[in-house]
Amino acid sequence: MFAPVYLDHNATTPLEPAVREAMLPWLSEQCGNASSRHDYGRSARRAIDEARSQVASAIGAHFSEIVFTSNGTEANNLFVKGAAACMKPGLLAVSAIEHPSVIRPAEQLVRRGWQLHKLAVENDGQVDAQSYRTALAGKPRLVSVMLANNETGVLQAVDALAAQARAAGALFHSDAVQALGKISVDFRSLNAAGVNALTLSAHKIGGPKGAAALVLDKRVEIEPLIAGGGQERGLRSGTENVAAIVGFGVACELAVRNLAAVAPRLLALRDQLERGLRAMGATLFGLGAGRLPNTTYFALDDVDGETLVSHLDRAGFAVASGAACSSANPEPSHVLRAMGVAPELARGAVRVSLGAASTAEQVSDFLRILQITVSKLLRLTAVAV
Amino acid sequence: MFAPVYLDHNATTPLEPAVREAMLPWLSEQCGNASSRHDYGRSARRAIDEARSQVASAIGAHFSEIVFTSNGTEANNLFVKGAAACMKPGLLAVSAIEHPSVIRPAEQLVRRGWQLHKLAVENDGQVDAQSYRTALAGKPRLVSVMLANNETGVLQAVDALAAQARAAGALFHSDAVQALGKISVDFRSLNAAGVNALTLSAHKIGGPKGAAALVLDKRVEIEPLIAGGGQERGLRSGTENVAAIVGFGVACELAVRNLAAVAPRLLALRDQLERGLRAMGATLFGLGAGRLPNTTYFALDDVDGETLVSHLDRAGFAVASGAACSSANPEPSHVLRAMGVAPELARGAVRVSLGAASTAEQVSDFLRILQITVSKLLRLTAVAV
Ligand SMILES: Cc1ncc(COP(=O)(O)O)c(C=O)c1O
Ligand SMILES: Cc1ncc(COP(=O)(O)O)c(C=O)c1O
Repeated sequence: MFAPVYLDHNATTPLEPAVREAMLPWLSEQCGNASSRHDYGRSARRAIDEARSQVASAIGAHFSEIVFTSNGTEANNLFVKGAAACMKPGLLAVSAIEHPSVIRPAEQLVRRGWQLHKLAVENDGQVDAQSYRTALAGKPRLVSVMLANNETGVLQAVDALAAQARAAGALFHSDAVQALGKISVDFRSLNAAGVNALTLSAHKIGGPKGAAALVLDKRVEIEPLIAGGGQERGLRSGTENVAAIVGFGVACELAVRNLAAVAPRLLALRDQLERGLRAMGATLFGLGAGRLPNTTYFALDDVDGETLVSHLDRAGFAVASGAACSSANPEPSHVLRAMGVAPELARGAVRVSLGAASTAEQVSDFLRILQITVSKLLRLTAVAV
Repeated sequence: MFAPVYLDHNATTPLEPAVREAMLPWLSEQCGNASSRHDYGRSARRAIDEARSQVASAIGAHFSEIVFTSNGTEANNLFVKGAAACMKPGLLAVSAIEHPSVIRPAEQLVRRGWQLHKLAVENDGQVDAQSYRTALAGKPRLVSVMLANNETGVLQAVDALAAQARAAGALFHSDAVQALGKISVDFRSLNAAGVNALTLSAHKIGGPKGAAALVLDKRVEIEPLIAGGGQERGLRSGTENVAAIVGFGVACELAVRNLAAVAPRLLALRDQLERGLRAMGATLFGLGAGRLPNTTYFALDDVDGETLVSHLDRAGFAVASGAACSSANPEPSHVLRAMGVAPELARGAVRVSLGAASTAEQVSDFLRILQITVSKLLRLTAVAV
């Protein structure tokens, strides 16, 4: 059997071989606990610190600004709830299209006395300027707007939004999980604009599952979600996953080194894909806004997205119908709803997300199989009526 | 150079080769996100569910009672803070010798209006019956007492304590991180006695860093610490670390299968070690109480523990002076303080924790080198005076 063609890189990415190589010693003779004060322990500590330097330099942050967590979801929760725990309850503003790992903790804060303003987005998926001004007029204490959306790939003007938030006295966090490795992300300049914290996740950039980071301006006080032995400057206790952290460091280095070469290649493949989709009459979401070079989100009239994804899977192509992390949930995408897409059309949504290993041949094969699959599905529907 | 002899298994354990083998495919071609609805995703989901069955059956729990987390620290925080978040603030009782990953979250609750009763222990390290009765008379909502202590190895009569807690109307949690794989742990019978939740951690039993579990009676309501995509029945969101979870499953299976053979072997080695230490005039902590078969905690008069550990490290033996997780902290052990050990003696504490690969030859080499090292240190001290 052939391995299916993987076109779902926004859900997760294959581990880069160089990343795996770097991890293996830490799954073998290098078995220490980084808190131990003997040779095994010190080696583990040095490896974690080297990874911390790699992650920091990949995004223009300082070594001491990286707080390792187990995944992006944890880093988002750490900022949203950890910063809120150091404040009196007040207003919190997050965009309506955030990942559930920002929206759910924001909703948990409502039960602790916070007010939540979900920022509206325009039809193209960008935060609505009027909604943002209204939110800021309410003097929020915290604002979170993602750099790039996982479903549509739509980018936000985060530095401008952060500058406005700072002027209004709010702390500003941005989820950069999908941006890292696909566009350039520079914490120093974002921080200068008013961004206090960023979330990153290793498994979205060719790194392992099990490592991620909150990049945090040290002037911002947060309370740990996970308290204990005091690891990660007391902000995230627990025995460190050395192998995954080492892999994350190498993955960051690779992703940033390869960005200039990979991004234009992905953009060309995406254009090829989108020309084919347009020729089939597909609606493409997020057009008009700046988007990640690797992400296409589309729907075809009268074709159910879930059904299409499962047929494509059997035909050898792995793509997504909604955000992978919330696909236990069969509701149409909250991102498309916020963009004003009609529910019937939203239910047809399919996401193709390309990666470093994607090829023009895979894209043309995908378009061919998509055409065949859709014709079959439409014929079935026609017969059923 | 020879690799130092590793005698610090309570800090962390070398990965079992069979565990590594089981993990490798998940760091290679098996790259899916378990939430994805295609072949890659479904394979990952199946692997996680198989590991869930392995962990559950190793401890006599049901599949649906296992909540995977990133480490034991997170699982302890999840129970303590997650259960508290579903209650009105009240009294909380934890033993004075708990790991910091229970004590710190308990202290965080104090800032949210809870009252904390730290249960006293006797000189042998077992929870003091009078202190326990007093705590229960105050009608605590939550009680946490560990099955086995990480520093001393001392076991608690958890089923009896849990039964009393249940009669007093409290939820009862037990940190089983150090017990798993060293003594038999059966959630079904503990649960029948009144234990509502247990914490386990993979890296203490030959499994990888990056996976652990809260074993939770489903009748107990807890709020997630990490909210988002709804993984782990909504109790722990975020993309799962498939490789680490797979490794945890295999490690549990191995640990339980080998327990009957390994435990008596460790006990014999420990006896050999303790005979040698006694001959050197060492004080052994936790004598008189039931202890884990692999753990020896001792001090020698006029010898500083930190100094001894660092000299032993250079001489090729990896042991611990305090709990690895809190050794950033140079204070004498809170466990020994609670046991009434004089601070001067507590500062001498050194822990040797044996593992499946430990041998009688290693133990006799260790005793020999210890003797030489201690004589040298005492001579240095004598000269300095
Ligand atoms: C935008 C965004 N934020 C956060 C996350 C969560 O990160 P993780 O999968 O590492 O928990 C994801 C991916 O699932 C994401 O796409
Ligand atoms: C008794 C005990 N509980 C909890 C922990 C924390 O587990 P982890 O190292 O997986 O965070 C440890 C080990 O450090 C421990 O010994």
